[in-house]
Amino acid sequence: MDETSFKLLAKYLPSTYVQQAKDARNTTNFLFNQLLEKRKWPEEGWSERDIEILLDELASLDSNNFLKNHGVGEREARIASSLVAKRNFHLGHGLGRSGDLTEVQPKAAGSSVLYQLTNDLAKDALRTLGVPDVKACFVAPLATGMSLTLIFLCLRQQQPKARYIIWSRIDQKSCFKSITTAGFEPIIVEPILNGEELVTDTEKIETIMKQIDPDLIACVMTTTSCFAPRACDDVETVAVLCKIYRVAHVINNAYGVQSTKCMHVIQQASKKGRVDAFVQSTDKNFMVPVGGTIIAGFDKCFVSKISQCYPGRASSSPIVDLFITLLSLGSKEYKSLARERKQLFQLLKEGLAKIASRFGQRVLDTPGNSISIGISLPSVKDPKSLTQLGSQLFLRCVSGTRVVSNLESKVINGHEFRNWGAHHSNYPTGYLTAAATIGMTALDVEQFLQRLTKVMESWSTKTIPIVSPSLTNGHDGFTQDLLTSDYLVDQESSVI
Amino acid sequence: MDETSFKLLAKYLPSTYVQQAKDARNTTNFLFNQLLEKRKWPEEGWSERDIEILLDELASLDSNNFLKNHGVGEREARIASSLVAKRNFHLGHGLGRSGDLTEVQPKAAGSSVLYQLTNDLAKDALRTLGVPDVKACFVAPLATGMSLTLIFLCLRQQQPKARYIIWSRIDQKSCFKSITTAGFEPIIVEPILNGEELVTDTEKIETIMKQIDPDLIACVMTTTSCFAPRACDDVETVAVLCKIYRVAHVINNAYGVQSTKCMHVIQQASKKGRVDAFVQSTDKNFMVPVGGTIIAGFDKCFVSKISQCYPGRASSSPIVDLFITLLSLGSKEYKSLARERKQLFQLLKEGLAKIASRFGQRVLDTPGNSISIGISLPSVKDPKSLTQLGSQLFLRCVSGTRVVSNLESKVINGHEFRNWGAHHSNYPTGYLTAAATIGMTALDVEQFLQRLTKVMESWSTKTIPIVSPSLTNGHDGFTQDLLTSDYLVDQESSVI
Amino acid sequence: MDETSFKLLAKYLPSTYVQQAKDARNTTNFLFNQLLEKRKWPEEGWSERDIEILLDELASLDSNNFLKNHGVGEREARIASSLVAKRNFHLGHGLGRSGDLTEVQPKAAGSSVLYQLTNDLAKDALRTLGVPDVKACFVAPLATGMSLTLIFLCLRQQQPKARYIIWSRIDQKSCFKSITTAGFEPIIVEPILNGEELVTDTEKIETIMKQIDPDLIACVMTTTSCFAPRACDDVETVAVLCKIYRVAHVINNAYGVQSTKCMHVIQQASKKGRVDAFVQSTDKNFMVPVGGTIIAGFDKCFVSKISQCYPGRASSSPIVDLFITLLSLGSKEYKSLARERKQLFQLLKEGLAKIASRFGQRVLDTPGNSISIGISLPSVKDPKSLTQLGSQLFLRCVSGTRVVSNLESKVINGHEFRNWGAHHSNYPTGYLTAAATIGMTALDVEQFLQRLTKVMESWSTKTIPIVSPSLTNGHDGFTQDLLTSDYLVDQESSVI
Amino acid sequence: MDETSFKLLAKYLPSTYVQQAKDARNTTNFLFNQLLEKRKWPEEGWSERDIEILLDELASLDSNNFLKNHGVGEREARIASSLVAKRNFHLGHGLGRSGDLTEVQPKAAGSSVLYQLTNDLAKDALRTLGVPDVKACFVAPLATGMSLTLIFLCLRQQQPKARYIIWSRIDQKSCFKSITTAGFEPIIVEPILNGEELVTDTEKIETIMKQIDPDLIACVMTTTSCFAPRACDDVETVAVLCKIYRVAHVINNAYGVQSTKCMHVIQQASKKGRVDAFVQSTDKNFMVPVGGTIIAGFDKCFVSKISQCYPGRASSSPIVDLFITLLSLGSKEYKSLARERKQLFQLLKEGLAKIASRFGQRVLDTPGNSISIGISLPSVKDPKSLTQLGSQLFLRCVSGTRVVSNLESKVINGHEFRNWGAHHSNYPTGYLTAAATIGMTALDVEQFLQRLTKVMESWSTKTIPIVSPSLTNGHDGFTQDLLTSDYLVDQESSVI
Repeated sequence: MDETSFKLLAKYLPSTYVQQAKDARNTTNFLFNQLLEKRKWPEEGWSERDIEILLDELASLDSNNFLKNHGVGEREARIASSLVAKRNFHLGHGLGRSGDLTEVQPKAAGSSVLYQLTNDLAKDALRTLGVPDVKACFVAPLATGMSLTLIFLCLRQQQPKARYIIWSRIDQKSCFKSITTAGFEPIIVEPILNGEELVTDTEKIETIMKQIDPDLIACVMTTTSCFAPRACDDVETVAVLCKIYRVAHVINNAYGVQSTKCMHVIQQASKKGRVDAFVQSTDKNFMVPVGGTIIAGFDKCFVSKISQCYPGRASSSPIVDLFITLLSLGSKEYKSLARERKQLFQLLKEGLAKIASRFGQRVLDTPGNSISIGISLPSVKDPKSLTQLGSQLFLRCVSGTRVVSNLESKVINGHEFRNWGAHHSNYPTGYLTAAATIGMTALDVEQFLQRLTKVMESWSTKTIPIVSPSLTNGHDGFTQDLLTSDYLVDQESSVI
Repeated sequence: MDETSFKLLAKYLPSTYVQQAKDARNTTNFLFNQLLEKRKWPEEGWSERDIEILLDELASLDSNNFLKNHGVGEREARIASSLVAKRNFHLGHGLGRSGDLTEVQPKAAGSSVLYQLTNDLAKDALRTLGVPDVKACFVAPLATGMSLTLIFLCLRQQQPKARYIIWSRIDQKSCFKSITTAGFEPIIVEPILNGEELVTDTEKIETIMKQIDPDLIACVMTTTSCFAPRACDDVETVAVLCKIYRVAHVINNAYGVQSTKCMHVIQQASKKGRVDAFVQSTDKNFMVPVGGTIIAGFDKCFVSKISQCYPGRASSSPIVDLFITLLSLGSKEYKSLARERKQLFQLLKEGLAKIASRFGQRVLDTPGNSISIGISLPSVKDPKSLTQLGSQLFLRCVSGTRVVSNLESKVINGHEFRNWGAHHSNYPTGYLTAAATIGMTALDVEQFLQRLTKVMESWSTKTIPIVSPSLTNGHDGFTQDLLTSDYLVDQESSVI
Repeated sequence: MDETSFKLLAKYLPSTYVQQAKDARNTTNFLFNQLLEKRKWPEEGWSERDIEILLDELASLDSNNFLKNHGVGEREARIASSLVAKRNFHLGHGLGRSGDLTEVQPKAAGSSVLYQLTNDLAKDALRTLGVPDVKACFVAPLATGMSLTLIFLCLRQQQPKARYIIWSRIDQKSCFKSITTAGFEPIIVEPILNGEELVTDTEKIETIMKQIDPDLIACVMTTTSCFAPRACDDVETVAVLCKIYRVAHVINNAYGVQSTKCMHVIQQASKKGRVDAFVQSTDKNFMVPVGGTIIAGFDKCFVSKISQCYPGRASSSPIVDLFITLLSLGSKEYKSLARERKQLFQLLKEGLAKIASRFGQRVLDTPGNSISIGISLPSVKDPKSLTQLGSQLFLRCVSGTRVVSNLESKVINGHEFRNWGAHHSNYPTGYLTAAATIGMTALDVEQFLQRLTKVMESWSTKTIPIVSPSLTNGHDGFTQDLLTSDYLVDQESSVI
Repeated sequence: MDETSFKLLAKYLPSTYVQQAKDARNTTNFLFNQLLEKRKWPEEGWSERDIEILLDELASLDSNNFLKNHGVGEREARIASSLVAKRNFHLGHGLGRSGDLTEVQPKAAGSSVLYQLTNDLAKDALRTLGVPDVKACFVAPLATGMSLTLIFLCLRQQQPKARYIIWSRIDQKSCFKSITTAGFEPIIVEPILNGEELVTDTEKIETIMKQIDPDLIACVMTTTSCFAPRACDDVETVAVLCKIYRVAHVINNAYGVQSTKCMHVIQQASKKGRVDAFVQSTDKNFMVPVGGTIIAGFDKCFVSKISQCYPGRASSSPIVDLFITLLSLGSKEYKSLARERKQLFQLLKEGLAKIASRFGQRVLDTPGNSISIGISLPSVKDPKSLTQLGSQLFLRCVSGTRVVSNLESKVINGHEFRNWGAHHSNYPTGYLTAAATIGMTALDVEQFLQRLTKVMESWSTKTIPIVSPSLTNGHDGFTQDLLTSDYLVDQESSVI
């Protein structure tokens, strides 16, 4: 509706009502304009209705929604199914142009604005949540691993001789594959055992940096959020080393946005040392469906180069999901959820400690991990019995636990990993992990603890603990079981 | 509802109605089961209602929708916004596992089935539409260019020494970038002028193959669908050469699925020679929003390797869009649309011929291009006047035309292209192109022709044609104009 | 978005794109403004997207959607469920005020405009479809029968002594109940047999008018659309009589809007005689869910009085459905569907004639019915066998046929009807009817004829026709069967 | 999906996942079956997703959604617009048959079950919320006033001689019109002034009962929820009188379900005396859009008769809204909202008392009204200044206040009401009312009090209070102001 519409409405309504309605509309427009002007994550969440209206408004700026448009190009964003059109708010042109993900599309002004706004909101969210110095970011419709690959490919363009990536081991296949898919050779630095916790072997990283020509090293990759008993990497020290030895530094902050600790170390690292880019998954941190990441950095120019590496137009769906969610929650609600998560982490820890002690076990002491908690499991003769623990939990509708038996070896892209899953070749005990992540409720914790207790009860009566402290050989029967057993359920979903 | 529900309904309804209702339900279930069993693209389209019910059913199989599920992992597909949840049919887990896009996800049985079904439907669609010998494919939530990059990265893993990709020049930035982003060096083979048509220089390709160690060549990349006056590449001959010289062959079939011709040459190429993979965009061929491709091939194992290269879980949104659209259209409706496109191509050609002759120009003779048509433009002193032609059309709500002045040079990733946009360093004339693509209507053609006539009329009176046949130097004023002028509108959207 | 928004967009987009987007928006606004100004049923249908945007715009004018509104009344249109809010486009205030359905609501300017627009569209639709002289109408969220009741109650207020309604018998319970619920006594005028057709006994109507004090007669009620072999009432003659004898005349035009004939007789009646109001169902004529009627008339003041009789605010849902549908179809598409209906009526008639003759029966000759067709059925000993015919069709997914055995009597509100269902105490034969209504497809006719043939085949072999021409007594076993048998399926759905 | 589907899924998934998925489905089915079996308002609310799935399941039982159905009746629930189809969950057949709103429809088994379930839930809700003895109810798609009319029409059928309805005056037009539209004559019993509160004049009611032949009295109508300073009627005493004098008793419980007090008096009245029916609005009590009521009673047979009076099929939209909302909230959430309302009533009262005392006014003492609160206003010379108070609040986005100046007389259907709006011919002071209703938030109260303070401040400076205690004549200027002033905003929306 425009001025003319309101004049026409005077035929239908007393003038005071028309004025009132106009005022109300202006309030909504004011809301939109504030967003367009300030480009900040609003504190108060918006109603779904206002979000939908804004999306409709933006879609109206795309040529495929022009009433009189006729397209004679090869790509005119025609949408065959009205069901598809609706779920995409009639946005059909995706993101970016062939040259650059973040470039404006002539045919799709609305989509282009939407993408810029989402990137602005995402940047403000990262700043608000603990990395105030972040300079630029963009939301990529890619998995975390694929986003890392894209960054690595971008680094190659800058440093054509590079062959290696120094990698602080984390047993998550995507992390490893992000290196090999990009065509690099990983130099694996196993974390060291500090008490029960696995921490970054910064000494070894430095040694490698000293030994190898920096031109041959594409970057060091560290990881913040991870499964216990691995701790958040010592990204500050690594950043300092990277600065000294002039090596790029890429941080996998997969689900670290929800943790003030993970965010804080990135901010510190950027101050003291070198951080070229850090990547976070949108689904794990912002409760949207899987499919996007925020690729961020402290150098606008480098972040822009990454976005220029993506050849072609990309799906705007993950961007739309994030845009809606950020507006819908607002920073206030998000922070409140983040605080709740922190409280539930304590609740979970205490609950697990009680259960563990009842069965002669303990919560692993991992002060460096603010999200995931492990409890030790008894040594068993047959690793299948550990497997069964996970399976039984899954069948009782507990998802997300992870049982590590320390018995498996795995070969990925030619590299052998002893005790795959444990982040370490020789972790002294088997264990089960659980995590407190954003969006979790007290009921989730309560139900999990109840069901775990029941499963442990029935399981402990069947399992005879054995004395030998640790088994380091893989068992044949074990790997065959992977596809159907629950063991695997979260085995590989750890980081990305 | 289950058997018990129907028993309970007998308290509400006479038994005959209950029976009738049960029968009706069985009919719907039969529809679903046929799909699950046959894994074929149905001939008759489904109603949106049936599609939505099936999607709901599948989503019910994902753990985040289990009524009593409690998640303690780091990724539990919690969806914060109900608006987001609904537009994604409550599917939150995305595609694949860290190891492989096509792997089954334990927490997301429904999503996994959905993805397999979509891949099955896509394969059947490719078969139905002209490539009956295709062996495997998967839908990737990636741009066409990024999909090509993924294939190239996969080829590197198989052939670690490879450095080059032989590329039959097509002036679309994404195509070129797909090579450089993957870290390869392009060997550019410019098409040769055959009359007014630009055709593949197969001789030069063979010469290169002879000269360079095949281990150093990752592949040859050819393109089917493209803007006139470039023709569909001679993929058959290239395929034969690739077979002889043991070089991989990747075909960019960006929007070729809608053209029986493009599909036929791929089928023939696979019979006579070597085709490792061919890629098609989902948006351009199947009228869904931008964001996906079908990566297909004739060797199941190689296609599977490509999907294993993607590190991490990916967005299922482009898959959902394609799934809905394929079911909604059915093959019958799609074929009918494809036939209509063919007819509109003729209509467009005839209309353009009339307009061209009126202004002393001609339709370029390009029998090898079944989608795009070019008409020559007069030589002008100031290239801006050509620019204006495009701008004026866009301002009159005609999108998708492309004006090529043959005056621009461009440097992309260090490679200089003379006459960027023309696929050729020295094309003899400026021209304007338009395309007939699937989903176009007779009204689109009619309106375009009308508006073009008007624009040409006003334009021709202002423009004084000059005699000099061709200008080969870039004009400074020209490139500065790019951002605001319509010249650019489709300049770079040509192929991908 | 407003002017300020577009200024702000210049930070995101080149100015030409902003201008283009603004132009596009203006085109949409122009569409809305034309509707607001002309208040006519558009010829071309609108896209669902434009309809939804307009509904959103209108809803924004209601106080419950004002961003800063705080309500302290007893009715503030709060909507608890977001699912409910969405399906109602956030419209919560319903229609009208306590005084009058069509009055403007201060808190709900948007809803009020929506209702006025719908009434305007409905009026224009009635005019366009054959009653150009209609002066006023409103859409009531009431069943046809209840709408008639409301009119009768309004007539009582004008004529407090009135006790009777003269009613040209039609065997549809709602019609009859509309009289008794309003507290009037029906004077039943049975149609007379003209060949095989049942036509209005206008002579008897006149006789009654002469005998009874006109102050005691609230009105005559006639019916246009009905099941064969009853014809459309002779509303013209009745209208003339009503004018002469100063008796009000109310026409039940339940599903007559789709028939040019029914509309024509109403227009003629209004010219030659007296028509106080005529009522049409929205669902049957405009393919919306059951729930509304258009109450129309030739005297603005009387129509307004009817709307003032409704005490309270009413559901806007049926209005929203009609508004969407009228805009979505446009008059062009509607007329095309109406023409198709006419053709299918012929197709159905011919098909039924073939089937009838094959089984020794005939299509009943009813030139006065343009929607429904009857074929005679053989006389049978046991009426259950006729019942089975209907049941078997329903079980084969043919809905809407109606089998009349001429054997039942029924007492409704104290009045006994011989041969209830046949509109006549003594119709000479049993029969089956089928109708061609708007929205029907050729496939519907084809499938019906096929299935009818099959059912008749199996049925005729079991049934031995008997000679006695007509049975006039009800059968005990028959009525008991009503609830479960298909006989009933459409027995009572005939007119309203 | 059925058993066969799950067998087929084994081709896609490991068997354990299939089993897990089946179990999850069974949980959902169990939820549905519990509802079907127990027919009770669930304590815990359902997710929107589960509600939508159940609605889809029910819609699948309606013949218009049968995959192979072909309709040849006059009403086949074809839905032209897919937007309309979706918002109605593809339910097209409405409610009831011509004979009875609550009768099962053969073509619409699903709709029929839905209606029965909604009526069951509504009955259980009334029982849970304070009227445990209620025997039957049905949800009518009618305004409260129209529902009362329907009840009165039903009473006429039982008592054909009845002419009068005894009415405890409440100044809400719909209430009054419900009587006159039904064709009855109201005997108006003005409430008496008890302190500042207006209470039922039961003595006068008894006197009338004694004087008039009970056969001539259709019923007494009392009202529970109303605007202060009127109190909830003394329905218990009236009920006792009705029992003694054998007069029917109908209670308008418009928005009383949210008040334990209103519900309690109905329950008590039914125990001690006679209550034939009581009516409550669905929108005001259950936060759905305007459009429905629950008509309830203590005699199954009488309630059934009322539903049989509605001639024709009715809109199911208000039923769907209520069904969704009851399931979505669950009784637990509803009770919690009701408790919150009670607290906000106190908050509002205290806040108003502070403001009132600041401006030399007071909160009217009305212990018999648990929802609405009045504060006195100064006597003014020009009633327009009172009008302005309301207008200014409305312009500041406070809706729902009601200013009564005690100066207006109104003639409705021939009856003159002195001081219309005040429920009394001679209330001693002007006042402003505000109400605390379900769904209100603390922010609503806070903002209202703030804005009221501001408006009073600016208003009091302009208004010079005069001494003369009460003006009893209407002012001409006043009524002319009605359309544009806020005075009217809620003037007439008071009760229904």
